[in-house]
Amino acid sequence: MNISQDLSQTTSQDMTLLRQAQAAKAASYILSTAGTAKKDAALTAIANILHARQGEWLAANTLDLAAAREAGMRPALLDRLTLTPERIAGIVDGVRQIIALPDPIGRVDKMETRPNGLIIGRRRVPLGVMAIIFEARPNVTVDAAALCLKSGNVCILRGGKEAIRSNRCAAVLMREALVQAGLPEDCICLVQDTSRKTANELMHLDGYVDVLIPRGGAGLIRTVSKEASVPVIRTGEGICHIYVDSEADLDMAANILYNAKCSRPSVCNAAECVLVHQAVAEAFWKKALPLLARHEVELRADKPALALIQSLGGQAIPASEEDWDTEYDDYVLAIRTVTDPEEAITFINAHGTGHSESIVTANYFKAQRFLDAVDAAAVYVNASTRFTDGGEFGLGAEIGISTQKMHARGPMGLEELTSSKYVIYGKGQVR
Amino acid sequence: MNISQDLSQTTSQDMTLLRQAQAAKAASYILSTAGTAKKDAALTAIANILHARQGEWLAANTLDLAAAREAGMRPALLDRLTLTPERIAGIVDGVRQIIALPDPIGRVDKMETRPNGLIIGRRRVPLGVMAIIFEARPNVTVDAAALCLKSGNVCILRGGKEAIRSNRCAAVLMREALVQAGLPEDCICLVQDTSRKTANELMHLDGYVDVLIPRGGAGLIRTVSKEASVPVIRTGEGICHIYVDSEADLDMAANILYNAKCSRPSVCNAAECVLVHQAVAEAFWKKALPLLARHEVELRADKPALALIQSLGGQAIPASEEDWDTEYDDYVLAIRTVTDPEEAITFINAHGTGHSESIVTANYFKAQRFLDAVDAAAVYVNASTRFTDGGEFGLGAEIGISTQKMHARGPMGLEELTSSKYVIYGKGQVR
Repeated sequence: MNISQDLSQTTSQDMTLLRQAQAAKAASYILSTAGTAKKDAALTAIANILHARQGEWLAANTLDLAAAREAGMRPALLDRLTLTPERIAGIVDGVRQIIALPDPIGRVDKMETRPNGLIIGRRRVPLGVMAIIFEARPNVTVDAAALCLKSGNVCILRGGKEAIRSNRCAAVLMREALVQAGLPEDCICLVQDTSRKTANELMHLDGYVDVLIPRGGAGLIRTVSKEASVPVIRTGEGICHIYVDSEADLDMAANILYNAKCSRPSVCNAAECVLVHQAVAEAFWKKALPLLARHEVELRADKPALALIQSLGGQAIPASEEDWDTEYDDYVLAIRTVTDPEEAITFINAHGTGHSESIVTANYFKAQRFLDAVDAAAVYVNASTRFTDGGEFGLGAEIGISTQKMHARGPMGLEELTSSKYVIYGKGQVR
Repeated sequence: MNISQDLSQTTSQDMTLLRQAQAAKAASYILSTAGTAKKDAALTAIANILHARQGEWLAANTLDLAAAREAGMRPALLDRLTLTPERIAGIVDGVRQIIALPDPIGRVDKMETRPNGLIIGRRRVPLGVMAIIFEARPNVTVDAAALCLKSGNVCILRGGKEAIRSNRCAAVLMREALVQAGLPEDCICLVQDTSRKTANELMHLDGYVDVLIPRGGAGLIRTVSKEASVPVIRTGEGICHIYVDSEADLDMAANILYNAKCSRPSVCNAAECVLVHQAVAEAFWKKALPLLARHEVELRADKPALALIQSLGGQAIPASEEDWDTEYDDYVLAIRTVTDPEEAITFINAHGTGHSESIVTANYFKAQRFLDAVDAAAVYVNASTRFTDGGEFGLGAEIGISTQKMHARGPMGLEELTSSKYVIYGKGQVR
């Protein structure tokens, strides 16, 4: 990559972000060989400074909240934007947990001596520069920065405009901590301009941004995947299904559906659609309807299920074709009746987003077939889809849940933030 | 993904390729669970049919060659396009070697029981549908198809128009073999229309193409990376360097440079630029010039090297700024003088393509520093860059050499053609 060439091809408006990306790249060469002790020292300094100077952070957040209220932000979003001393304690605790995780960098996965005497090893290295585009959640700023730092990656953070004052303060504090620990402050970069233009520029910083992760709604993710020329990891699109088989334990099935739909409907591992085998549909709905009614879940059912639910005194409306492809993130559930497990598998592979899918059955062979044939990051037997999460999977922390097959699939922990490099020790060999 | 929705958004001209992609996706669900025995049977059938009916393949190739000659194709390209009974024997032998490789699919990398009793395993699965855009090399058709098949991936092959008759024949034969072995013929798909339009359509088959690999010149690779909305793996861009350190064994250094530049200059792991420490420049060039002169290598040197080479009676021309960023793929070498190893590292990270880089030195610490700090898929000490190759690295075969950090880096064998899936065994757990 010829940097001067690149500069000449950009307009003067692009200069700020490009300069920032160049600084990030330069910092990444230092961070990639910094070693675990130095990275952990920087993370400790970050945890300490965020705790010690939380007053500044809270003050910045108060300004964000005032502006958001004035702009008429919805209460649920206002809540996500809000920092409190308790929430900051949780964020700081998250940083300390990341310090305690093993550093994946530098491990040699495999090494062998070839017949010609070359010793060839594959070593874990950082990805380099990671750009993360996210919405108005100030906790993401620190979470993402800490995960990137531990895995030797420089991050370029581009948060939503609603949280810009909070994010700017967190970035200033974290950059101070980096310097205290003897690392370049550009190991953590925040894009100051939160216009759509900078998001678009980030997507095209080929040669500077090694991986771009969009964290947010389906629209953001789709736009970034379509438009970016830098490598992208798609995360967090979740149209998840529960398939209730004819041989399911129906109490278990109702309980799993209730948990998967209602325990936290706004997250990506919540269920959006239930497929019910017709042979057990009536018995199942007798158990499931009272549970779903606790949260007044809106049911959008196909014809057989609609008739059945209404005959049981339940409320439901007819599902449209769009319902099979919609992530509600709300107390809404699509319902489809199937006549055998293969129909469920085919439907899931056609309409799922490759996130998390579950079968409830007591039949061993159907369980195995479902695990084999369903094409998703996490496939469950007799459990709620809500478990798809870095913490629940034992990864310690996660930067997102990948729904693509390239690079990483499912919850992405530190390991998934690495690449590899072949190191080859010779004695003058030629080919 | 809603297939009917997708169909409605495309024009009638796109229909053929979209239908093909839908058929490929459907086949991928069958192939992904087919098992090793069936896949190996299909590969054996492919090897047998390509051998038994090579007459048809050679006849089709003769037509391609005639058309290419008429269109004035260069001799080197004509040679690449040519099939002979010997070359077919080599291609068939390649298929048999792939049969002998271990199947990566189905292996469980890790599995553990979580505190809540969930048993969580990570299983290797195919990527799904792989699209490969390549130029006029009929051997790639079979190589790529066989590697994809062994790793459970359906391939959509889009070769260059010059080889279309050869490719069509190979595809027909391989599809016959698939049916003989009881697999869907759509496990191997060939795009019949070799216009630019189909390449462009392939890049945007989101939801059908899981990974797209461009195999060809730098222009093709750059265009595909920039324009594709499906995930892309960049392969085969190689601006590789040899750094001759002040403490190098200069005979070894001259020999490595000679091998890296001259043994096969058209391939991506050939060296394009040598960096020479000024302290040993004169002694080094006395040894290297006679070797490079054997192939009349054109030397493009910076000022100090130019003066030095001319003073030694050698021929060289001044290097321009573009030379540092050019992949010659020819008997041309860029020459740069450096004053210390860090200068070499910085230069390589700025101008390399992240492919293969080598230091020649007897100094232990400089060797370690180079391995740590150079950001490339393969970093060598005292060996030629020409070893970066799936066969040389012990992978058995390769579909390309990745120069990106996401997913796979360096030679991509069967392992690199896989993704993963979490399989979770529960007993009714909810969160």
